[in-house]
Amino acid sequence: MDLFTIADMIGISAFALAGFLVGVRKELDILGICIAAFLTALGGGIIRDTIVQRTPFAFSETYPFICIVAMIALALLLRVHKRQGFDRSRLFVVADSIGLVAFSMTGALIAIDSNLNFFGVIFLAFLTAVGGGIVRDTLVNEIPFVLNADFYGSVAIVTGILVYGVDMLGVLNHTVLLIIGVLSLMLRLVAYFRGWTLPRLVKGNENAG
Amino acid sequence: MDLFTIADMIGISAFALAGFLVGVRKELDILGICIAAFLTALGGGIIRDTIVQRTPFAFSETYPFICIVAMIALALLLRVHKRQGFDRSRLFVVADSIGLVAFSMTGALIAIDSNLNFFGVIFLAFLTAVGGGIVRDTLVNEIPFVLNADFYGSVAIVTGILVYGVDMLGVLNHTVLLIIGVLSLMLRLVAYFRGWTLPRLVKGNENAG
Amino acid sequence: MDLFTIADMIGISAFALAGFLVGVRKELDILGICIAAFLTALGGGIIRDTIVQRTPFAFSETYPFICIVAMIALALLLRVHKRQGFDRSRLFVVADSIGLVAFSMTGALIAIDSNLNFFGVIFLAFLTAVGGGIVRDTLVNEIPFVLNADFYGSVAIVTGILVYGVDMLGVLNHTVLLIIGVLSLMLRLVAYFRGWTLPRLVKGNENAG
Repeated sequence: MDLFTIADMIGISAFALAGFLVGVRKELDILGICIAAFLTALGGGIIRDTIVQRTPFAFSETYPFICIVAMIALALLLRVHKRQGFDRSRLFVVADSIGLVAFSMTGALIAIDSNLNFFGVIFLAFLTAVGGGIVRDTLVNEIPFVLNADFYGSVAIVTGILVYGVDMLGVLNHTVLLIIGVLSLMLRLVAYFRGWTLPRLVKGNENAG
Repeated sequence: MDLFTIADMIGISAFALAGFLVGVRKELDILGICIAAFLTALGGGIIRDTIVQRTPFAFSETYPFICIVAMIALALLLRVHKRQGFDRSRLFVVADSIGLVAFSMTGALIAIDSNLNFFGVIFLAFLTAVGGGIVRDTLVNEIPFVLNADFYGSVAIVTGILVYGVDMLGVLNHTVLLIIGVLSLMLRLVAYFRGWTLPRLVKGNENAG
Repeated sequence: MDLFTIADMIGISAFALAGFLVGVRKELDILGICIAAFLTALGGGIIRDTIVQRTPFAFSETYPFICIVAMIALALLLRVHKRQGFDRSRLFVVADSIGLVAFSMTGALIAIDSNLNFFGVIFLAFLTAVGGGIVRDTLVNEIPFVLNADFYGSVAIVTGILVYGVDMLGVLNHTVLLIIGVLSLMLRLVAYFRGWTLPRLVKGNENAG
């Protein structure tokens, strides 16, 4: 089991937990909570694989399913949903960020493998990392966090651009990918703990008095 | 015309009517109402076929289109939208439940045919049966009924598990499928008329006081 | 560069601007605004190509990406978001309508090329033209404008029916397509400036009093 598979498993578990917590917060029933967990963890990858005409990876590999079921069981056992602010704890944020970066890199690599252009690589990096969360937020009737929350989706895009860049330079290998992963992870964590945000535009007539 | 095609037609018609009624309730114009009817009846199947890389069945067969157009015409003629509570009538609930079970079985069988794993079979059974309704509810800005309504989506999952199970046991044939269909239908109807619900989790701090 | 490519570029640019303005209005951050612009312009085509199992056109061609980036830059430079009502200006409405018609025709032609039936042709014409806008509106938590706004989606459907009709008659060629395009564009513009709407159904008990 290589480092990327481990990062992928950490990501799947963290994303499933994020979905679980959203489901609890929106007062879904237990089936709805499980759907939120599964969609958050696997939704982006299923859409990505459908676009590039592959059998979704979650439908042939077994470990994603096991990770998610184990995570839901663990969350119920530890009564994670009773602990306010668990999703802002350091443990959770780091695990979630590893998932963000690992998923972005998988998406970018699959796009390169499918001979997509620059836009395709960024799109699939972004979609793989945040697509599941977007689908989940849309279902529970919230504006997806990634559209106005914080420096999150940008990390997926930066990761995609870096992977595309090293591929263009002909130096796409395991070591370089590992370096990109560490850099992207640092970017995400620094942005999170320093509270970086993206600028907003202001609509007309805002200075009417 | 075999039993499964008849069940499929009943399902398509009932789902189209359900979409029609939601469209009327949300005060959409006549085009929006038609879109709601078509999406509810065919949306799940189109997404499923796209995932397993088939031409969507509604784009090659003619009868789904005819069923839906006929259903919309009938609904307008009988002014079904003027009758409050029609979607809770016994006739509608039974037809809708037949659709739920027929669509779940189709999804599970197509997943098995595409060599998907356990998760893939459950996913496609669920998606085929409730995907159209989820897309419709999301479009009209409601939290999909299946996420917190009642014992509905669970029937699709149980049906998927049963079909997967008999396939594993090597006894997947018409008679066994018919038995699964009857059992699932009974489960749905008993759950509906007895008002079964799934448990909910309670968030932290609920006993503050 | 033929007429259809030019119409496509005008449409991509107008749709990107429409997405940009929605993003500003919903107070998204700059990343969210870019996502809204890209999704509006390219979302419908990506979903369409995924359904008919092609590599999405935006992932192999370069000009859609360039049109959108240029449009966003131009909008920021001209501070279009400060001008109230720009999306109701004559220039914008005409450009948007050209996009509507061009996208509908592309969708219909790809459906015919993929041997889809009548319903498939209408579905892809509609999806290509309004799918991106529907996805965008759903994400920002609004009921898609096309479901209850005005005579917009109907133009896509009429265009699809016309293209299907001339194909059935065996007279599908560039001249005929150009005529269909002009007719559809006129239909849209007349409907817009005359304020045509589609009828609504009224729910039961509306005359209780």
